[in-house]
Amino acid sequence: MNYETPQFFHVMQYAENAAGDVIDMVSGNPDWEPPQAVRDGLQRYAERDAADFQYPPSDGLGSLREEIAARRNVDSDRVIITNGTGEANYLAMAAALEGDRGEEVVLIDPVYPYYLGKSTMLGGTSRLVAADRDGSLDVDAVCEAIGEETALIVLNTPNNPTGAVYDIDAIRAVVETAADHDALVVVDEVYDHFDFSGRFESALTLDSDAVIVTSGVSKSMAITGFRVGYAIFPPALIERAKTRHMLVNVATSRPAQQAVYEAYRETDPDYYRAAREQLEDRIDQFTSALDAAGAAYTTPDGAFYVLARFEGVPGTMENVKRLIDDAGVAGMPGATFGTARSDWFRFALVTPRVDEAADRLAAYFTGR
Amino acid sequence: MNYETPQFFHVMQYAENAAGDVIDMVSGNPDWEPPQAVRDGLQRYAERDAADFQYPPSDGLGSLREEIAARRNVDSDRVIITNGTGEANYLAMAAALEGDRGEEVVLIDPVYPYYLGKSTMLGGTSRLVAADRDGSLDVDAVCEAIGEETALIVLNTPNNPTGAVYDIDAIRAVVETAADHDALVVVDEVYDHFDFSGRFESALTLDSDAVIVTSGVSKSMAITGFRVGYAIFPPALIERAKTRHMLVNVATSRPAQQAVYEAYRETDPDYYRAAREQLEDRIDQFTSALDAAGAAYTTPDGAFYVLARFEGVPGTMENVKRLIDDAGVAGMPGATFGTARSDWFRFALVTPRVDEAADRLAAYFTGR
Repeated sequence: MNYETPQFFHVMQYAENAAGDVIDMVSGNPDWEPPQAVRDGLQRYAERDAADFQYPPSDGLGSLREEIAARRNVDSDRVIITNGTGEANYLAMAAALEGDRGEEVVLIDPVYPYYLGKSTMLGGTSRLVAADRDGSLDVDAVCEAIGEETALIVLNTPNNPTGAVYDIDAIRAVVETAADHDALVVVDEVYDHFDFSGRFESALTLDSDAVIVTSGVSKSMAITGFRVGYAIFPPALIERAKTRHMLVNVATSRPAQQAVYEAYRETDPDYYRAAREQLEDRIDQFTSALDAAGAAYTTPDGAFYVLARFEGVPGTMENVKRLIDDAGVAGMPGATFGTARSDWFRFALVTPRVDEAADRLAAYFTGR
Repeated sequence: MNYETPQFFHVMQYAENAAGDVIDMVSGNPDWEPPQAVRDGLQRYAERDAADFQYPPSDGLGSLREEIAARRNVDSDRVIITNGTGEANYLAMAAALEGDRGEEVVLIDPVYPYYLGKSTMLGGTSRLVAADRDGSLDVDAVCEAIGEETALIVLNTPNNPTGAVYDIDAIRAVVETAADHDALVVVDEVYDHFDFSGRFESALTLDSDAVIVTSGVSKSMAITGFRVGYAIFPPALIERAKTRHMLVNVATSRPAQQAVYEAYRETDPDYYRAAREQLEDRIDQFTSALDAAGAAYTTPDGAFYVLARFEGVPGTMENVKRLIDDAGVAGMPGATFGTARSDWFRFALVTPRVDEAADRLAAYFTGR
């Protein structure tokens, strides 16, 4: 078994060690403030009884599971609190691959690289199906790729890196075909709070026993370092997933779970709206500068990434390092996200210096 | 693949729902105070810059890795910070089982049940080798069990549930035989701070490329709910383990890591000594009452568990529930820990009510 290490930390480290000032647009680390209730929750936690410093229930604090279940309109028995959406996706993909469903994993290209790595690690073989040019699901191509050997299809909406928000009818068509082939569909909705199109609809609304939805608060609450995510399984799969979770992690960090619970309860919708609006402004700024630089680019309907292509400078790891050293802007190579956009760069709009980064890129590519 | 769910949470839940007052001696949750620095660390964390709420390095905060490396006298490149010792053991066992070393896992009976579950989940087949009557390693039997198909031997010292502290020469003999058969030895040292014998010596002192040592601060700092553990891999295995860690968890919770780092720096040795002395007192109290009850029992050299056997009442799940309902004391069934002590009960001495629990058991079994 030979699985690839996702390259995010590698690029971040390179950027950190660079000689000059570098604007970090590598990783999906929000740069805005977490809800005040997260800070307050930690503070209060420090004063709690020693008993509260011990194991939470393996599947997560009951209060937090109930809160998420109510928000997602599902039975709380179907919810596992995980170590970020990363573990949620691991558990979901394992659920599909450990049975006798087959070993093929259908992924959409461009693809979030962790899916590829997890698939290989879990003994799966990945099959990439290209997205439509605008990043949306090519339903016919996906359904055609689903066969007897297919255990699993992984979707991500709003999408990283394309910014596409999948049409719920497209997801439904994939889910129905999957169900016909005894395959599962994992839908990673971690960017659900960052929908600029108003079209996002959760795959949970399909109410299908073939669907596992994963998500978390890393992005929505700007706390990627807390590692609080969750997976919502169909009833028939939940017990086994809980056992795997227990055998891998026992439970996840309790202070983080408690702070997130309090933040769910106390955070005003304005908090989420402000983050969304800020991102919309950044997208405008950044894509305007890309226009000025003569680049091709995607305008995201959701999430917070822009793919850009510069004539004659393909988005290879080598060129990513060159942009870090010579332009002072760090992005990710498109080849990290499959083959469909391997000559593109991905930029994460999670810095207050988006404007400056755009100017740097424009200056670099126009030789100003 | 059909792996068993460890029964700890099941018994805890039963005890919680019992009608009467129940003294909880089920799980290894310390009941004493964490170091003050853990609380202070969380409090300070709440005030930190938003950037500190984002992903730590995947393998853990550099400061924490350096601290642990210095304490364990190894190169920090060999250290991964994990989601508790649970994840550390998962990564270590996966490292042995994912290669072409074979698929057999040698475990010592009595056995910590998570090892069995992890082994099955990772595609291994477990082979139990009985410990000596006093819980120490039966070196000849272990070495005899190691063959061509052996990928892995898992040792735990100080031992849960027997309380044995393994002789370093016994561990060395096992490691040498393992190395001859291209097998790895995982040594779980999570109870290293609870050695009453003065004989505990870490397997790291063997300086062997066949040894992976796992540990954590869940027990030593009385924070099982924080999920901060670590694994120390031989250089040849570390990169792959880091990749698996990244693909499963991305990283672990940063506030917990930071608080633990500060607690390492600021906690006086008296803190650890006080916990140890308190446990020694409890062992005395509990075993004296077991004498009074006419029970057979183990006197632990380390960790904080006592195995006890009561004539005519084997330690089955059914009898565990009976003791909860009728004696008001919750322990674990011996059958959870393999076959060697299946007629015993395991009691965790992590309650200030050890004295009372002992009296209840004595009263129950002597019919007073």
